Amino acid sequence: MSDVYIIGASETKYGELWDRSLRELATEAGLKAVEEAGITAKDIQILYGSNSLAGSISGQENIGALISDYAGIAENHIPSVRVEASTASGAAAVREAYLAIKSGEYDLVMVGGVEKMTDIYGNEVVDITSSILDREWEAFFGATPAAMAAISARRYMHDFNVPKETLSLISVNDHLNGSMNPNAHFRNRITLEQAMSSTPIAEPLNLMDCSPMSDGASAIVLASESYVKRNRLDGIRIVSSGISQDYLAVHSRKSVYSIESAKLAARDALRRSGRSLKDISFVELHDSYSIYGILLLEELGFAQPGKARELVEQGIGISDPLPVNPSGGLKAKGNPLGATGVGQFVEAYLQLKGKAGQRQVKGADLCMLHSMAGTGTTSIVHLVGE
Amino acid sequence: MSDVYIIGASETKYGELWDRSLRELATEAGLKAVEEAGITAKDIQILYGSNSLAGSISGQENIGALISDYAGIAENHIPSVRVEASTASGAAAVREAYLAIKSGEYDLVMVGGVEKMTDIYGNEVVDITSSILDREWEAFFGATPAAMAAISARRYMHDFNVPKETLSLISVNDHLNGSMNPNAHFRNRITLEQAMSSTPIAEPLNLMDCSPMSDGASAIVLASESYVKRNRLDGIRIVSSGISQDYLAVHSRKSVYSIESAKLAARDALRRSGRSLKDISFVELHDSYSIYGILLLEELGFAQPGKARELVEQGIGISDPLPVNPSGGLKAKGNPLGATGVGQFVEAYLQLKGKAGQRQVKGADLCMLHSMAGTGTTSIVHLVGE
Repeated sequence: MSDVYIIGASETKYGELWDRSLRELATEAGLKAVEEAGITAKDIQILYGSNSLAGSISGQENIGALISDYAGIAENHIPSVRVEASTASGAAAVREAYLAIKSGEYDLVMVGGVEKMTDIYGNEVVDITSSILDREWEAFFGATPAAMAAISARRYMHDFNVPKETLSLISVNDHLNGSMNPNAHFRNRITLEQAMSSTPIAEPLNLMDCSPMSDGASAIVLASESYVKRNRLDGIRIVSSGISQDYLAVHSRKSVYSIESAKLAARDALRRSGRSLKDISFVELHDSYSIYGILLLEELGFAQPGKARELVEQGIGISDPLPVNPSGGLKAKGNPLGATGVGQFVEAYLQLKGKAGQRQVKGADLCMLHSMAGTGTTSIVHLVGE
Repeated sequence: MSDVYIIGASETKYGELWDRSLRELATEAGLKAVEEAGITAKDIQILYGSNSLAGSISGQENIGALISDYAGIAENHIPSVRVEASTASGAAAVREAYLAIKSGEYDLVMVGGVEKMTDIYGNEVVDITSSILDREWEAFFGATPAAMAAISARRYMHDFNVPKETLSLISVNDHLNGSMNPNAHFRNRITLEQAMSSTPIAEPLNLMDCSPMSDGASAIVLASESYVKRNRLDGIRIVSSGISQDYLAVHSRKSVYSIESAKLAARDALRRSGRSLKDISFVELHDSYSIYGILLLEELGFAQPGKARELVEQGIGISDPLPVNPSGGLKAKGNPLGATGVGQFVEAYLQLKGKAGQRQVKGADLCMLHSMAGTGTTSIVHLVGE
């Protein structure tokens, strides 16, 4: 089976981009990735599009085709398919592209993720974003993503005697890193006190514990080993890809704060790579709510159950032993759902190429990328680097 | 690369199933396919879910996870991903599963397609189904799928001097075949006169030219060559898979009735198979509107441009040289969007196993399955058999 390399990666700024449409964002990211890869758009053999909610937000399904059309590659009849796994859609699309190259059917594949979140507001946001939960067994009874995260947080904090400060440190770290990322939604640093005292959302979570509603797009170009060799390219290797699943509804799971999909997906990716956790230079993880940042450090294997607090208190900045979310994470870089997972690969590409500027993790050579659907229904973990 | 085999296939009845939910339909089809394959559900390594519109219709995204959860396989942490390519979602999901097995990463994969259409009605139907068009350049100006098909029909009929009867013969054939399919949405035969004189929808198309709003689910189990050999199974081979693309908006295409994606996808599938059109025992094609049945016979290569009329008048029944849509097609078997493409594989499985009952195509050994997104934006063509 062919190895798979990232040969180009790019993204738009993430944020409240009122003047940009879904198709404009996707096209900008795609064309910049093509330029970075040093290819022309018509060389691409298939496009994997990632999007979570445009059917509900913009009345637009068939996003793969939309991107292909607007980017001007439809005239070359380059096919497109959309992959959806809720908020893990980006990583799921990369994974399908990775398998497509491994199958031997393709040499050059683009993955583009896009989300236009700010076209909805108020109750619409609550209703539409709740479509990632179990609609009939969770959302209909009033549960929202924030409420589900809050339930997990309260029980976890109780069981392991973890203070609110631990959660807030995830957000403080994200904002610090985001301040060094020109494409981040938020570039302001926040103090622990600011993180602790912001507007309550779903107690114990407040505004600074919740990732924002972001618009944005990210794109990467993947190539087979033979393509990279033939064209003497210097690509970044996707070492392995793992995926696992848990019940859609949180009430069916082992506990209200277990994210077993993440544990199993990380094991899967590590096993396939032949590498171990100590080889990881940094991790990008799906902290859509700060509590998930804490829980994921444990589930992915970086801390024992209930012990992520110690790791976070020791430091998770770009110069610490385990840098977490050097991109700024979902809280500060932002969370344009369908783009978020693809954006993690953009960060991996920049870091491993030594092009991450101020937020460069020194000596980074292997990273773990974790993306998850909703409350942890699906987790997808990739190892990228050498 | 491993060959890929269908080792089990099943589906629910298609129709207006007011008392069945999305998750019930998906689970029924999935479990019956598992039983047919002679495996247990927990043997499945990954689930590809296909759905087109549940985010808008049922407020439920993350359908892969929903099916996995409700079917009871989430406890085994079997991962799931949803594939969406508008009304070609089913074929697109099968294609991803096919690539996943070819990549060498999987041996046993399920594909489940489901749609629950009858939870919407009236203007909602027009609005939501129009999300498969280009929302900003087509649907916002009042275009609907039926209107776009009507525009194609009028121009084609004018250019090649084709009478309305030609279109109606597609529907008459579908209903005749559907009358022999116990799972078909409509099992009544219709006369040419009935087809010609039904309620106008978008002239020249009337009710008998338009596929219905169907609920339903279809599922297949795919296995690698080594799995089939190891377990001494008698699978049906997916010989090749082709995909191609055109502009999302019809106004950008070569003409308002060209479906170049179909032409190119068929060529792609034929080239990869080393077979030719004369080897095809029957074709299942995406006649969401009768005009598409006519246009596709030409684009797929079975008739010259403007000449499908002759083929249809000579006969396209199950005993004719080229049987078209022995299942009953989208008009009579029905069109539960996300399930439709997967359902074509169920028909292929039954026909090639000689289990298609009254509608059996005698001596069928190789078939062509064509599925398309919306007005022909994406086409996916598979050859199945020997």
